[in-house]
Amino acid sequence: MDLASFYHDQLFRDCLPFWFPRAVDEEHGGFLHCFDRNGSLVDSDKSVWAQGRMSWMLLTLYLENDRKPEWLEWAEGGLRFLEGKCVDASDGRMYFHVARDGTPIRKRRYAFSESFAAIAHAAHARATGSCESAGKARHWFERFTDWNFTPGRIPPKFTGARPMEGLGPRMIALVTAQELRKHLGEDAILTGWIDRCLDEIRRLFVKPELKVVMESVAPDGSIVDHFDGRLLNPGHAIEAAWFILDEAAYRNDAALVGLGCEMLDWMWARGWDQEFGGLFYFRDLYGKPVQEYWQDMKFWWPHDEGLIATLMAHRMTGEPRYLAMHEKLREWSFARFGDPEDGEWFGYLRRDGIPTSSLKGSLWKSFFHHPRALWRCHQLAPE
Amino acid sequence: MDLASFYHDQLFRDCLPFWFPRAVDEEHGGFLHCFDRNGSLVDSDKSVWAQGRMSWMLLTLYLENDRKPEWLEWAEGGLRFLEGKCVDASDGRMYFHVARDGTPIRKRRYAFSESFAAIAHAAHARATGSCESAGKARHWFERFTDWNFTPGRIPPKFTGARPMEGLGPRMIALVTAQELRKHLGEDAILTGWIDRCLDEIRRLFVKPELKVVMESVAPDGSIVDHFDGRLLNPGHAIEAAWFILDEAAYRNDAALVGLGCEMLDWMWARGWDQEFGGLFYFRDLYGKPVQEYWQDMKFWWPHDEGLIATLMAHRMTGEPRYLAMHEKLREWSFARFGDPEDGEWFGYLRRDGIPTSSLKGSLWKSFFHHPRALWRCHQLAPE
Repeated sequence: MDLASFYHDQLFRDCLPFWFPRAVDEEHGGFLHCFDRNGSLVDSDKSVWAQGRMSWMLLTLYLENDRKPEWLEWAEGGLRFLEGKCVDASDGRMYFHVARDGTPIRKRRYAFSESFAAIAHAAHARATGSCESAGKARHWFERFTDWNFTPGRIPPKFTGARPMEGLGPRMIALVTAQELRKHLGEDAILTGWIDRCLDEIRRLFVKPELKVVMESVAPDGSIVDHFDGRLLNPGHAIEAAWFILDEAAYRNDAALVGLGCEMLDWMWARGWDQEFGGLFYFRDLYGKPVQEYWQDMKFWWPHDEGLIATLMAHRMTGEPRYLAMHEKLREWSFARFGDPEDGEWFGYLRRDGIPTSSLKGSLWKSFFHHPRALWRCHQLAPE
Repeated sequence: MDLASFYHDQLFRDCLPFWFPRAVDEEHGGFLHCFDRNGSLVDSDKSVWAQGRMSWMLLTLYLENDRKPEWLEWAEGGLRFLEGKCVDASDGRMYFHVARDGTPIRKRRYAFSESFAAIAHAAHARATGSCESAGKARHWFERFTDWNFTPGRIPPKFTGARPMEGLGPRMIALVTAQELRKHLGEDAILTGWIDRCLDEIRRLFVKPELKVVMESVAPDGSIVDHFDGRLLNPGHAIEAAWFILDEAAYRNDAALVGLGCEMLDWMWARGWDQEFGGLFYFRDLYGKPVQEYWQDMKFWWPHDEGLIATLMAHRMTGEPRYLAMHEKLREWSFARFGDPEDGEWFGYLRRDGIPTSSLKGSLWKSFFHHPRALWRCHQLAPE
């Protein structure tokens, strides 16, 4: 089977049938997603991230693969649940975790629920021509950037003595703006955010002299030489790398191709486990011990992001070594995360590749990273 | 070597020399504790918990083992750092994490720093006769209980839709009051807290019909059937079991002996890994998958607490099976957490017993659980 067919097959025969129609909550709307290995429901609670992410993924397949009416219908159910049940009317922010019927359980200091709502609405606007959805996409993007980038807006977790900036909000703002531009068209606001994020990632987090992409830095980009400041997240940086390669393709910009490939190369070198294979979750900048005790585990999503990044780097540069990296990662990942019996991927492996949990879905894992990777890799696979 | 000598040897030849005098910060006062395997400093930051815990442990050895002047001196350095650098003057609460020079880095929603300060001051009052230290012990105990038990005092992490109560504040209030009583003498306030905690633990968290000690319950003690509510922490419950056995010994109360032994038996049955040995960190009440991806790891402190609990259960009941459990746990633990080369224990093992980190100290691990277990087991070992 060629690579494009492999990914098509994995998406439509292994992954999607695990989630649908099982995840559709006919009673309360939105998506259930805390499923055990065989698809039995382990918790009826709902992640607000998952509501936006799953709606977006269904709409992406609707737009790019096949206009199946049920995909649109299910996605619209997710969007209705998001708008009807997941917003705190007192401040207009979204919750993080709600009960099956939408009773709010938790709102977090930080705000990413809004970014996933924004991309889902944008894809819905494209799919249906709805001006209302386009407006909601812009609204949630504005709320997301306001909350994450206005100094002082997020209640501080730490004192002001050792301020740090994170890669996370910048990479999510970047990909969210890219997604809105794709569906709503280019405009100065979106381009402004994309330019700003590219600039800040390159200027603050990318360190050619250390061949590293930092996860957190001081506001001037300098290294904070403590556990938290030295902490590297190779999967996150590799995901950011393909967001940048996407922008390189859009702009036909060779310098951005170089930046994205360097980020991938450096973090692959730091993240790949030479002994057992797979990508470590955390590493220390200077090779010192990491404080997080589970730092050597292998999570599903960095492997999904690595599959996209390596294939995209191959597409952009033609260098065969990226295809070799892709094959190495693909072989390692599908053999260990995959579950030929019940489909979908397990989420978490010990360093040596043994799953630590039979869960296929949780408050963190839903129908998002894995199907996104399968779909992107299907599209990117060389002829 | 007999058991008492084994533990004496481990404490004074393996554990204590790893930490001292290395941990004493001659420059800024207090204790450094983020050490790698061989004792090299990996981070100069300081845990406020560790300042109180290490002072208390040194004072306990000073009171109960040998009046070495340097142990008192080092402990007093820890107490000065605690009082001088770790208190937020704006609200009288303690920080959680400070820089080496005491610059505050983080204060948490919850407040356990105060409980460890309280026991350290109480032991200091006993060691020196200082009325000032006795007053400080009472002050920090009052701050701890006020913060943890006054409804609405702790800023909520969750909405009010699904309220839960935790075992943690009750077991820490219990042991803190016991420690203050030991050093400052019995009084109605301390006895009141001990009675209240015993009552709440038994009434809300102990479930004979399920043979389990819950970690979190609804305010009326009912089970919250979601990931968080079903989550069991066997090490925590086994630690609470020996706090209760300690009270049983103090009161000469057979019903409390029964309660403590049942808690130990049930949570040993649920926590012991039949396949690889050792105590799992988390389990699910109904055997469903746990959401925490590192749930099957083996942490050092539940094993230290298990060593105390099994030996204390043997002392109180004379049942040989508790000595057999102790031996099984001791053999498993020292062979895997121990480091014959550089001393002290590693903190974190994969399920199969391989360390995931070379750290001996961190913001979470200092000179506390392990030396406390070694000292208590030395005292409890059968003739």
